[in-house]
Amino acid sequence: MDFYQQHIVDPDKRVRLKEIDSKIMGPFADKQEGYDFTADAVAQIQELQYRMFTESKQSLLIVLQAPDAAGKDGLIRKVLGQMNPQGCRTYPFKAPSRIERAHDFLWRIHQCTPATGMVSIFNRSHYEDVLVVRVEDLVPKSVWSQRYEIINQFEKLLAERGTRILKFYLHISLEEQLERFRERLERPEKHWKLNPADYEARDNWEAYHEAYEDVFARCSTPEAPWFIIPADRKWYRNAAVASIVLETLKRMDPQFPEVEVDLDEMRTLYERAAAR
Amino acid sequence: MDFYQQHIVDPDKRVRLKEIDSKIMGPFADKQEGYDFTADAVAQIQELQYRMFTESKQSLLIVLQAPDAAGKDGLIRKVLGQMNPQGCRTYPFKAPSRIERAHDFLWRIHQCTPATGMVSIFNRSHYEDVLVVRVEDLVPKSVWSQRYEIINQFEKLLAERGTRILKFYLHISLEEQLERFRERLERPEKHWKLNPADYEARDNWEAYHEAYEDVFARCSTPEAPWFIIPADRKWYRNAAVASIVLETLKRMDPQFPEVEVDLDEMRTLYERAAAR
Repeated sequence: MDFYQQHIVDPDKRVRLKEIDSKIMGPFADKQEGYDFTADAVAQIQELQYRMFTESKQSLLIVLQAPDAAGKDGLIRKVLGQMNPQGCRTYPFKAPSRIERAHDFLWRIHQCTPATGMVSIFNRSHYEDVLVVRVEDLVPKSVWSQRYEIINQFEKLLAERGTRILKFYLHISLEEQLERFRERLERPEKHWKLNPADYEARDNWEAYHEAYEDVFARCSTPEAPWFIIPADRKWYRNAAVASIVLETLKRMDPQFPEVEVDLDEMRTLYERAAAR
Repeated sequence: MDFYQQHIVDPDKRVRLKEIDSKIMGPFADKQEGYDFTADAVAQIQELQYRMFTESKQSLLIVLQAPDAAGKDGLIRKVLGQMNPQGCRTYPFKAPSRIERAHDFLWRIHQCTPATGMVSIFNRSHYEDVLVVRVEDLVPKSVWSQRYEIINQFEKLLAERGTRILKFYLHISLEEQLERFRERLERPEKHWKLNPADYEARDNWEAYHEAYEDVFARCSTPEAPWFIIPADRKWYRNAAVASIVLETLKRMDPQFPEVEVDLDEMRTLYERAAAR
């Protein structure tokens, strides 16, 4: 199955999230097949990421957005965070600090974009500024409605400098989210994650869907596509994202850098040292 | 075996690196025992790091220094980088950039120290400013000789804000380094690492040892101890560092944060949502 083509958002077709099944199993007969697929993909991702790191010409930016409990943390732990830590950094974007609020909404984002050879993973992102900010009416519509085009130009700027951008929305159902909230209540080591605001966001479920649908329509570009990942099954979510990251790295086709040193000279140096 | 006590530098006893065996096997009968030990330690590190991340009161800074090919990258990949990437960042410090050179030597370092809950891993560090800078005579002795006390005060500042600091020197023999250079020559995917300067550093081996010995004597403090890790055997190096990091996290004793929300209220919210 071509997960990339299956889940990429075509901006010409208006997406309706409630029409997208969040519980699919794709080509997998069972969970174990999904695990095996992901393990294989992760191994290939590691190999290609190492090449990209040594090549130091291109970079990769992965944006994660999702409702609470949809699995951003698990996806990072099991898939994305398996990359070599020297070439990969994760950035969480929470409610902006006082200093961050004293700047434009892209200021804190721009500082975290990947240098050549590097991968940045955004746990939430600049898209919150047209999502929570819109649903909770934190700035006037006249302000947030201009941000889609600002974001597109910003992402184009990154792309032109060699950054591939993948944006994933983890699509979870209200029922599955509730089930995960129940698990949090039952497991003391998860209690620190409990937050009454999670239930308020459920009341705004449709408003969030509408805000996401506008994001997909306006900001899924060739340089920086959005993918909608069915996420009720954690193992499917991991397999699909791993496959899309792997496909992207293959297209980027990173190469070990040309050897700049003279290999004969290096051999001579080695032999001289060995003869001592 | 108590790796922590075994390898910590006692500043009252002058260390002579050439008197320290770089090829020990410690308590392990063979390589496999070392692997098993490390795997177990890494699993415990992951658990404690997660607690520290959620607790968000303390932080951990790990400094790695070593001759070329001593295995900093491998150690990060196999041990330190196994921590949850959301709570851990790796920072390489190379020759300073033009902007960095326009500041004092701790300016770039300070920006990378860990926030509460986080781990920072330094691949090389501010110690280069009393190592390569000294051996290659990049600044006058009157300048670098003042840096030890500046470093101690800087690390004390971090410690007082809740940062534990572990500093590891990976101790490798000239013979083992040469063997690893040979492997690099034989493996095309490692050719990008080849650098004639690596052989120049071998000519300065004793000068580097002397510079390190001064670092150990002057900067192994209770707040920020140095450890000398025998590193000719990669699996021993990994086991020893994993053990010391684990021991440190145990002493830090991170706790899941107190639940700030009202659990009864959370249960009511859950039941209300489930009844819809």
